[in-house]
Amino acid sequence: MEAINRRGFASDNNSGVHPNILKSFEQVNHGHTIAYGDDIYTQQAITKFKELFGDDIEVFFVFIGSAANVLGLQSITQRHNAIICADTAHINVDECGAPERFTSCKLLTLATDNGKLTVDLVKKHMHGFGFQHHAQPKVISISQVSELGTVYKPSEIKVLADYAHSNNMLLHMDGARLANAAVSLSMSFREFTRDAGVDVLSFGGTKNGMMYGEAIVFFNKDLAHDFMYSRKQGLQLASKMRYISAQFIAYLSNNQWQTTATHANRMAKILEEKVRKIEAITITQPVEANAVFAIVPSHIISMLQEEYFFYVWDEDRSEVRWMTSWDTTEDDIEKFVQKIRELI
Amino acid sequence: MEAINRRGFASDNNSGVHPNILKSFEQVNHGHTIAYGDDIYTQQAITKFKELFGDDIEVFFVFIGSAANVLGLQSITQRHNAIICADTAHINVDECGAPERFTSCKLLTLATDNGKLTVDLVKKHMHGFGFQHHAQPKVISISQVSELGTVYKPSEIKVLADYAHSNNMLLHMDGARLANAAVSLSMSFREFTRDAGVDVLSFGGTKNGMMYGEAIVFFNKDLAHDFMYSRKQGLQLASKMRYISAQFIAYLSNNQWQTTATHANRMAKILEEKVRKIEAITITQPVEANAVFAIVPSHIISMLQEEYFFYVWDEDRSEVRWMTSWDTTEDDIEKFVQKIRELI
Amino acid sequence: MEAINRRGFASDNNSGVHPNILKSFEQVNHGHTIAYGDDIYTQQAITKFKELFGDDIEVFFVFIGSAANVLGLQSITQRHNAIICADTAHINVDECGAPERFTSCKLLTLATDNGKLTVDLVKKHMHGFGFQHHAQPKVISISQVSELGTVYKPSEIKVLADYAHSNNMLLHMDGARLANAAVSLSMSFREFTRDAGVDVLSFGGTKNGMMYGEAIVFFNKDLAHDFMYSRKQGLQLASKMRYISAQFIAYLSNNQWQTTATHANRMAKILEEKVRKIEAITITQPVEANAVFAIVPSHIISMLQEEYFFYVWDEDRSEVRWMTSWDTTEDDIEKFVQKIRELI
Amino acid sequence: MEAINRRGFASDNNSGVHPNILKSFEQVNHGHTIAYGDDIYTQQAITKFKELFGDDIEVFFVFIGSAANVLGLQSITQRHNAIICADTAHINVDECGAPERFTSCKLLTLATDNGKLTVDLVKKHMHGFGFQHHAQPKVISISQVSELGTVYKPSEIKVLADYAHSNNMLLHMDGARLANAAVSLSMSFREFTRDAGVDVLSFGGTKNGMMYGEAIVFFNKDLAHDFMYSRKQGLQLASKMRYISAQFIAYLSNNQWQTTATHANRMAKILEEKVRKIEAITITQPVEANAVFAIVPSHIISMLQEEYFFYVWDEDRSEVRWMTSWDTTEDDIEKFVQKIRELI
Repeated sequence: MEAINRRGFASDNNSGVHPNILKSFEQVNHGHTIAYGDDIYTQQAITKFKELFGDDIEVFFVFIGSAANVLGLQSITQRHNAIICADTAHINVDECGAPERFTSCKLLTLATDNGKLTVDLVKKHMHGFGFQHHAQPKVISISQVSELGTVYKPSEIKVLADYAHSNNMLLHMDGARLANAAVSLSMSFREFTRDAGVDVLSFGGTKNGMMYGEAIVFFNKDLAHDFMYSRKQGLQLASKMRYISAQFIAYLSNNQWQTTATHANRMAKILEEKVRKIEAITITQPVEANAVFAIVPSHIISMLQEEYFFYVWDEDRSEVRWMTSWDTTEDDIEKFVQKIRELI
Repeated sequence: MEAINRRGFASDNNSGVHPNILKSFEQVNHGHTIAYGDDIYTQQAITKFKELFGDDIEVFFVFIGSAANVLGLQSITQRHNAIICADTAHINVDECGAPERFTSCKLLTLATDNGKLTVDLVKKHMHGFGFQHHAQPKVISISQVSELGTVYKPSEIKVLADYAHSNNMLLHMDGARLANAAVSLSMSFREFTRDAGVDVLSFGGTKNGMMYGEAIVFFNKDLAHDFMYSRKQGLQLASKMRYISAQFIAYLSNNQWQTTATHANRMAKILEEKVRKIEAITITQPVEANAVFAIVPSHIISMLQEEYFFYVWDEDRSEVRWMTSWDTTEDDIEKFVQKIRELI
Repeated sequence: MEAINRRGFASDNNSGVHPNILKSFEQVNHGHTIAYGDDIYTQQAITKFKELFGDDIEVFFVFIGSAANVLGLQSITQRHNAIICADTAHINVDECGAPERFTSCKLLTLATDNGKLTVDLVKKHMHGFGFQHHAQPKVISISQVSELGTVYKPSEIKVLADYAHSNNMLLHMDGARLANAAVSLSMSFREFTRDAGVDVLSFGGTKNGMMYGEAIVFFNKDLAHDFMYSRKQGLQLASKMRYISAQFIAYLSNNQWQTTATHANRMAKILEEKVRKIEAITITQPVEANAVFAIVPSHIISMLQEEYFFYVWDEDRSEVRWMTSWDTTEDDIEKFVQKIRELI
Repeated sequence: MEAINRRGFASDNNSGVHPNILKSFEQVNHGHTIAYGDDIYTQQAITKFKELFGDDIEVFFVFIGSAANVLGLQSITQRHNAIICADTAHINVDECGAPERFTSCKLLTLATDNGKLTVDLVKKHMHGFGFQHHAQPKVISISQVSELGTVYKPSEIKVLADYAHSNNMLLHMDGARLANAAVSLSMSFREFTRDAGVDVLSFGGTKNGMMYGEAIVFFNKDLAHDFMYSRKQGLQLASKMRYISAQFIAYLSNNQWQTTATHANRMAKILEEKVRKIEAITITQPVEANAVFAIVPSHIISMLQEEYFFYVWDEDRSEVRWMTSWDTTEDDIEKFVQKIRELI
């Protein structure tokens, strides 16, 4: 079994569940509670979110990050709207068309250098307003951490938010790796989300040690109007909600999320450092969170993949993506880099 | 806390997670596995299903029973079809329109005496075939256990399946409480599903001691064609799939599901027995699984609800539904009935 | 050809186009106009509607009545809503599930004696408000003329509208045969629509002598917000809009609609009168517009259909529906009744 | 009125209806015919299509070209598919997201030089097959004439069709201006559609002198399975179908479509010729059908638009699109070019 479950660098969701999260289940696992979220644990978990973001928010738990993204976007669009995002965005490439399916909106994509949108890029799609033949842009959606492992500074987010708002649009953030961004920026969640102008946030936990369960946070309560029905109709209402809530209580207590995210980011930095010393390899993106993108000699890729699972990001360029996780060890990295050296 | 989590009779999904299920998480919680189901635990869980139903099936895990129902129905319909079901069916009254939203189909409902469809009832909607103005009936959907706590005999299912198939239609079964039906019938799952002609089955576990996770079982593999995309696009693909699989492995091992379902059903029988002795109360449905439906003096309902949570089924008739669960105790029932006697 | 195009009693949409409507095309068929409705003819047609209903309305033209119904309903619902209607409603039985497909809403149907809803009937579905598992009732939809040829009095509509509004709901009217209702009531359109509390109206013309084109009239302009995009995305925006507009200009001028509808209704009255004298036949619904429902000896139906096309409404009861049209002649009726007499 | 309806160069759908088409209405406007297409005129119109394309096809009439595109695409995709098209494609930029709304598919777009796809371009999106996170490419959609006024040669279409088929995909053609392509190529419709491997064709008429009505032609009858329900549920089934059919009968008789399309194309050639002589203007696309794309001095655009309506194609480049139509006259062009010369 050990061989099969060897830690690799494929994705932070290949890792398991943090022991503190597992333990949280036992703390709520007694007796009956009302199903579907009308229980004290869910109340406590929501309170944790309000401590982070302020009282005047609405929070809803769903099963997965894609659902947080898609239902969040659905709640702030009409069917004839368009959503502007990076062409690398998870909503564009990794959700099998779910955004189109659920929202009926068109996704307008933009090529980026580093996974991050800018107002200059966004402008390309800012036309056709009021023209009935044209899907009407309504949302700018960004990922923090981006899919290329880079992190938006609050000021960069603010500029996008202001631009969106001044065009009667909204800013959505896919925060599947929000904790990694927070520790990268050494900031509270609030500073680079709500305070930077984000309207709706997908708040992830699964990639940072939880088992399942993500949150949709509405910073403007009006946008959440009727969302409980959207969640139910969208098949994302857990009957035994207390077990998602228990995880979030644990995740948001005792520095849990910081500890694991800090570790994952640190592992990426160590990996970067070691790999930079190998001449045959070129790091292609700033390592700002828990991902290392690198161009490696193409002949070593499949050999390396025999022992360590990871993804080729761009076949043509021989570019790979290595993700570190809350459970990656320095020893894992040491051996991995040693293997790379051997193969080169 | 004890007072808050007091066991009631509201629903089997108000109960917690069985210790054996909780334990299953630890058994898979080490190292990395490929996300999204390409792992050995998921393979093992699928094998468990094949042992129950035969090798030539397709099984997919999703988060909740509504998703199993809705995506299962989506996979066997075209957008212009109609689905025939009881007016009490979960898909009709408890999924906030998700079947219509996902399938685009029309639900054609039928009033029943006991929650169970018959061919005679179904015939009411069997017209308009080939008429382009009319949503084309394609599926008969039944619930086993029914929403009124009754259980279809295999012969009753067979008649519906044969009728469906002879009309170029399919039979779908919502098996949120399939284990309760199996122990009620003293039969294997297979005898009253696949062998009785069911085409697509929602196989539930959450109401019988699991935390989350349900299965869609296709008895005709052709019907599952492309389903993996429907699941992903339907926001029901778990990244850390191994934790759903671990639950199903435990659930389908060591008589786990029988033990808990047998207990829940037995508790309902005991409750029925005790309540039948109270003259002021009338049992309204045969108690064949883990539900007791009863007409009670209307003045006691709210007083009883102060201590025990349960649902009023039909306000006008003063009819209530009491569900027992895998964790209901004889003592719970004793005290509950005593309380009823006091109030009357 | 004459034999093939013999006038029957199947439907008023089996009739042709009134010469005055045909002539209207020539009046607009010169030179270029901006496509998609930004032309003077469309402006003129909209002005005609404002003369009927008041200036503070929004009017949009679409191709067919089903589209007027479905897009109108879409514009006043959220996906998790429910729409209450008669089980005989066109939206329920004659649109192949388009309302569910477009709105994602659930249709909640009611059996009626005469095709008309009442508050007492509607109440059956007025529950589950605020309960997230339940599709939330938002619209009451009625047909004027009803599908059984009966006509709502303004007072009956008002009661439904008030009830809807007091429950935070809206009243939708399918007016495919609105002209027939108006002449039946001897009232202006406005008296039994806007003034009776209707919120959104499908205003039909095709069944009363037009070729194609129907209107959606919003009496509350806020409800029409963004509707131009819904129409386009709903595939109902005509490029050469001026030809729909031309028809409506003609239809709403020179008593055109009254003349044709009055005639059609009168023909139904004559048919009723003659048929009432035949003992073997029972009229089953009040003849208030241009439909006659009757139970006839079953053996004559197919023989009669060899010469005159019409629909059997209820096979079991041997009940038929005979529709008269703007082009039905007294001679048509005379010969038809004579044929019936011969067959009996 | 003359001033208002002055012929411009905005779009061929700003033109009126050809007198022969108008006349066709009178030929079918007598007596009753069965509604919804079960009439002899529709049969005759379908026969006309079979004469063009072969007997083993399926043809359905809808109201508009967008509907032909969208419902055609819906019929050959599953919800999790992707459709590859030029970024200039009508389905991408001019249908307000209707393709996404109806099909739930993702549109994968490609920048082109001349509006035409090639296999080399298409390859960019040909990955992710079998990967459940990725919308699965299923259709290549091309426009003939393209949105840039260029025309695919049959050999170019064949290469795309073969490539699609060898990848288990289909080729869809948006033929809003199919007649203009046919006269440009001096070929029968069949040679560059069915014989070149096209699977589903939107066959347009409105831009070439019809009032409304377009056709969806399936060259593989299996693909049309159940399409009649899709059309009805898609709100595209005309009740008085005979008037669409009458137009198509006239359109496909007596060289009607050739005459008008030949004229429109010739007018574009004359316009091109005259404009090429103006040094300040650069023609930017080959003039192969009835469109002229040109970069003009930016200061003249708004002045020219005061008298002639036309669209600016690319504001930044000062590029405009001038469309000619079946009713454009040489005199129109003469005066238009004279005006341009004056302004420059």
